[in-house]
Amino acid sequence: MAQIVEITDTDDPRLADYRDLRDVQLRKNLEAEHGLFLAEGEKVVRRAVEAGFTARSFLMAPRWLDGLADVLDRSEAPCFVLAEKLAEEVTGFHVHRGSLASLERRPLPTVESVLAGARSVLVLEDIVDHTNVGAIFRSGAALGFDAVLLAPRCADPLYRRSIKVGMGAVFTMPWTRLPDWTNALPDLTAAGFTTVALTLADDAVAIEEAVAGLDRVALVLGSEGHGLSKRWEEAADRRAVIPMREGIDSLNVAAATAVACYITARR
Amino acid sequence: MAQIVEITDTDDPRLADYRDLRDVQLRKNLEAEHGLFLAEGEKVVRRAVEAGFTARSFLMAPRWLDGLADVLDRSEAPCFVLAEKLAEEVTGFHVHRGSLASLERRPLPTVESVLAGARSVLVLEDIVDHTNVGAIFRSGAALGFDAVLLAPRCADPLYRRSIKVGMGAVFTMPWTRLPDWTNALPDLTAAGFTTVALTLADDAVAIEEAVAGLDRVALVLGSEGHGLSKRWEEAADRRAVIPMREGIDSLNVAAATAVACYITARR
Ligand SMILES: C[S@@+](CC[C@H](N)C(=O)[O-])C[C@H]1O[C@@H](n2cnc3c(N)ncnc32)[C@H](O)[C@@H]1O
Ligand SMILES: C[S@@+](CC[C@H](N)C(=O)[O-])C[C@H]1O[C@@H](n2cnc3c(N)ncnc32)[C@H](O)[C@@H]1O
Repeated sequence: MAQIVEITDTDDPRLADYRDLRDVQLRKNLEAEHGLFLAEGEKVVRRAVEAGFTARSFLMAPRWLDGLADVLDRSEAPCFVLAEKLAEEVTGFHVHRGSLASLERRPLPTVESVLAGARSVLVLEDIVDHTNVGAIFRSGAALGFDAVLLAPRCADPLYRRSIKVGMGAVFTMPWTRLPDWTNALPDLTAAGFTTVALTLADDAVAIEEAVAGLDRVALVLGSEGHGLSKRWEEAADRRAVIPMREGIDSLNVAAATAVACYITARR
Repeated sequence: MAQIVEITDTDDPRLADYRDLRDVQLRKNLEAEHGLFLAEGEKVVRRAVEAGFTARSFLMAPRWLDGLADVLDRSEAPCFVLAEKLAEEVTGFHVHRGSLASLERRPLPTVESVLAGARSVLVLEDIVDHTNVGAIFRSGAALGFDAVLLAPRCADPLYRRSIKVGMGAVFTMPWTRLPDWTNALPDLTAAGFTTVALTLADDAVAIEEAVAGLDRVALVLGSEGHGLSKRWEEAADRRAVIPMREGIDSLNVAAATAVACYITARR
């Protein structure tokens, strides 16, 4: 059972995991060095623990203790309780839904183990926005995808904001980081997947046509600004477009993913 | 031609439109009182002016002047030029893509004029997140929708963040605010639209089935937290669901909209 520890001093070193949540660069360094990630909100905290992640600690205002009582019951980690105002001082913002947890990251699985048994896979190149990454995990999970692979420069799906937007889908969806950007797509083809690049390239065919009748599929999405790299675009087995009204640049990458997953799930 | 005005004092009263862009509540009041909205980034500023909005002023760092020269040429509004660091002090953040414009809001059109000639319409109930509102406008525009109607409590599509995420789609997509929440859906039915509520309700039918063969359609989307109100859910002519994998709560509302627009455009 989690030990309840009341804290009244915002400088208490036991709160180190929760400092300055708004400072993205500081958080990235801190979380990488300590191998931790943060979950925010009762629902997401519960899902992290239920998915088997080990909590380092919890932090919440008194009125959130009851809602998470069952989760705390099953954990050995301390639960720091502090007044809402003090929590705000430590974290740097108003803590929505009142509870936070700091959890241990796990070693990333191999690409092979993530792909084992998967029939529909998302491959994200350099998607830099945590909101987009979270939304993509959520849509992929909801619309029947089995795994997500991330290029080396894609944003962290265990960053607090990604987790929150994804409603914790990242805890249950198998995913890993691709060790090798250069050969990632040929490797997928060799593993039996048809790689389908989502792109506005001139030779792209309509997505419904591109995925019709395929068995194992990997949908490949590009970054918010510049889209897919030339290398990945050319290495893909097929190039597919979601037809748009004349004069429109592009869809947001999370919207494009939702539409593409829906269609591909029905191939 | 816009007059170039170099400014070195961050307290200059002519910069009033650009202050504290991070303070949502302050901005809402300021923008409502002065009937203005802010566009951010070269592409979006250009689109606002090309769509016929009248600029009150522009604000940019020196190196962005060239990129917007043609836009400034065609405007009578002053262009305030100040060093990047000073611009950051005024606005409260690092100004991405270097340029801002303050523009005049226009009176909202009537519902009738927005619906005239429209065949596919989005109706947003209380969507409170500006990112979602912007993403919905962008997807709707890209995927063939003709107009957007907003419930009285839906977030402002001309808020800086909505505009940016929507890539300026709000400038060209006809939209307005529904004056009457209570009868909004029956009024749409009376105007010849089949209203289709997107919902996880038990009696919802799969979206493809719900929209098949319809002529004029209004897709109705609910808020991020609680979804559609009972009243709207029950008032809709049909209730439709995007089928999801077992155990998943819901899609993000912008993802749900993208999928629903894609399917409905192909009805
Ligand atoms: C915002 S878009 C990038 C736009 C970029 N300027 C380009 O031309 O590729 C981000 C990603 O979303 C996907 N995407 C967006 N709209 C799409 C569409 N209509 N068809 C296929 N993919 C799309 C692509 O994977 C793209 O790399
Ligand atoms: C995040 S959901 C709200 C979830 C809310 N808890 C509920 O049960 O309705 C926001 C909106 O997105 C739309 N939505 C999300 N997933 C959907 C799905 N699978 N089918 C139909 N509509 C969906 C609905 O309009 C919903 O009101």
